[in-house]
Amino acid sequence: MVGMNVLWIFAHPEQRSLSGALRDEGLRALREAGHEYRLSDLYAMRWNPVVDGADFRHDADERLIVGAASRRAYDAGTLSEDIRAEQEKIAWADALVVQFPLWWYGMPAILKGWFDRVFVKGFAYGIIGPDGRTLRYGDGKLAGKRAMVVLTAGAPEATMGPRGVNGELGDLLFPLHHGTFWYSGMSVLPPYVVYGADRVPAEAYETHAAALRKRLAALPTEEPIPFRRQNGGDYDERLVLRPDVLPGRTGLSVHYTHPRTPAAEGVQDTQTAVSG
Amino acid sequence: MVGMNVLWIFAHPEQRSLSGALRDEGLRALREAGHEYRLSDLYAMRWNPVVDGADFRHDADERLIVGAASRRAYDAGTLSEDIRAEQEKIAWADALVVQFPLWWYGMPAILKGWFDRVFVKGFAYGIIGPDGRTLRYGDGKLAGKRAMVVLTAGAPEATMGPRGVNGELGDLLFPLHHGTFWYSGMSVLPPYVVYGADRVPAEAYETHAAALRKRLAALPTEEPIPFRRQNGGDYDERLVLRPDVLPGRTGLSVHYTHPRTPAAEGVQDTQTAVSG
Repeated sequence: MVGMNVLWIFAHPEQRSLSGALRDEGLRALREAGHEYRLSDLYAMRWNPVVDGADFRHDADERLIVGAASRRAYDAGTLSEDIRAEQEKIAWADALVVQFPLWWYGMPAILKGWFDRVFVKGFAYGIIGPDGRTLRYGDGKLAGKRAMVVLTAGAPEATMGPRGVNGELGDLLFPLHHGTFWYSGMSVLPPYVVYGADRVPAEAYETHAAALRKRLAALPTEEPIPFRRQNGGDYDERLVLRPDVLPGRTGLSVHYTHPRTPAAEGVQDTQTAVSG
Repeated sequence: MVGMNVLWIFAHPEQRSLSGALRDEGLRALREAGHEYRLSDLYAMRWNPVVDGADFRHDADERLIVGAASRRAYDAGTLSEDIRAEQEKIAWADALVVQFPLWWYGMPAILKGWFDRVFVKGFAYGIIGPDGRTLRYGDGKLAGKRAMVVLTAGAPEATMGPRGVNGELGDLLFPLHHGTFWYSGMSVLPPYVVYGADRVPAEAYETHAAALRKRLAALPTEEPIPFRRQNGGDYDERLVLRPDVLPGRTGLSVHYTHPRTPAAEGVQDTQTAVSG
């Protein structure tokens, strides 16, 4: 297997954390496996997460329409320099690893604003194919790349399982996995997760680290989450699932071509390794 | 009906937008109905959405553990002043209206970081009840307050329906509705939504405005989304839904005490009014 180019996005405010240790562990594993990596450490970079007119050199006297302004600036190469630098890293990368602590069941703002600002129209969405159809959900400029979340969550695993009070992790991550990565064309690997992350005893660290190394070793080959392609025939012209596909069923799981199981998401695997 | 205190959170970068017009419309309606309001216009305030040690006057030589540091600073009254000002507005409010454009199927970073920074441990979570159980999902310091999302979404309604390619809106908003508002004790009203918001013709504006006024008129009385209470008997001691509750079912809808329908979410209503 030839080496991959990996962009690692890190969004934790403390380097001396479990997250920081796992990041170093992960980067070392990538290097030892013959991959190249680049790191965007958002706190260390003092990343600005707030979309505004300055991103697009927008004239403040004109009404700002974000989609249109970002498209124009992207096409003209006039997006602000910090955004262009991240887009160049993504263009270089074969895979993105996106690491964060789960805050209020989503990404920390500094990371959400990395997507808000970097994934502009023309780069990550708004791409029209040769047949006139919009290329999204499995197609688009970022197709061919892989993406994987590395997550630390305070909650115990059972509370984020299929019937856990917090909602199933795969559903909570759907806006990122499906609505962002897959939307822009990327294949999405099951997340690596440390549950109960604020109560990990020191002696458990090596087990978590080993599980992460195992997942990263499979980065080039692991089976992605089986999301449906928008233009694959399952959705009608209004982009609603055709009546003959899983008739009568609703819920986010209808957007998978085959049923999700905890094992299919790799969560169970990771946790087994961690507990073992 | 006696007047309510309403805190309106606004997270759009452009005042001269559909969002800005609807906000002004909404605030006017609240005043005319005899309510008091306060506005947190996050872009106008140049709100800082990034959690870091400065929020807690944290010693940079010490390892930062966000939950512990925020709890200490909250209890000591030493949270940074911008955070305390928002907490005081929330304490004053009977209802929160949270208005934003849907970006990557979630909140703009400036708004996500309002929750990240303001909803600290001790204020919005980490509250232990007299019987030793943690008060969350329907109980907690913010219980008794109501919260409602006012949303503009670029996508057409069908694509965010029960089988639409983007995933059902109620599921996409679950991390905010259930994981944030309800988690901290607030009752959650169905969202007000304008779909296809970047293609609203001028002549449709008054219909959207009327639908918003109608929803705000019902702010004190409307039936909240029927999420299950954590301590209401439906979850076991691991916080997993008991086997006899909707046996064998999974998906986010299991966390509702009765089935969701588009009408129960009010989305259909709004859209009907909008199209009419």
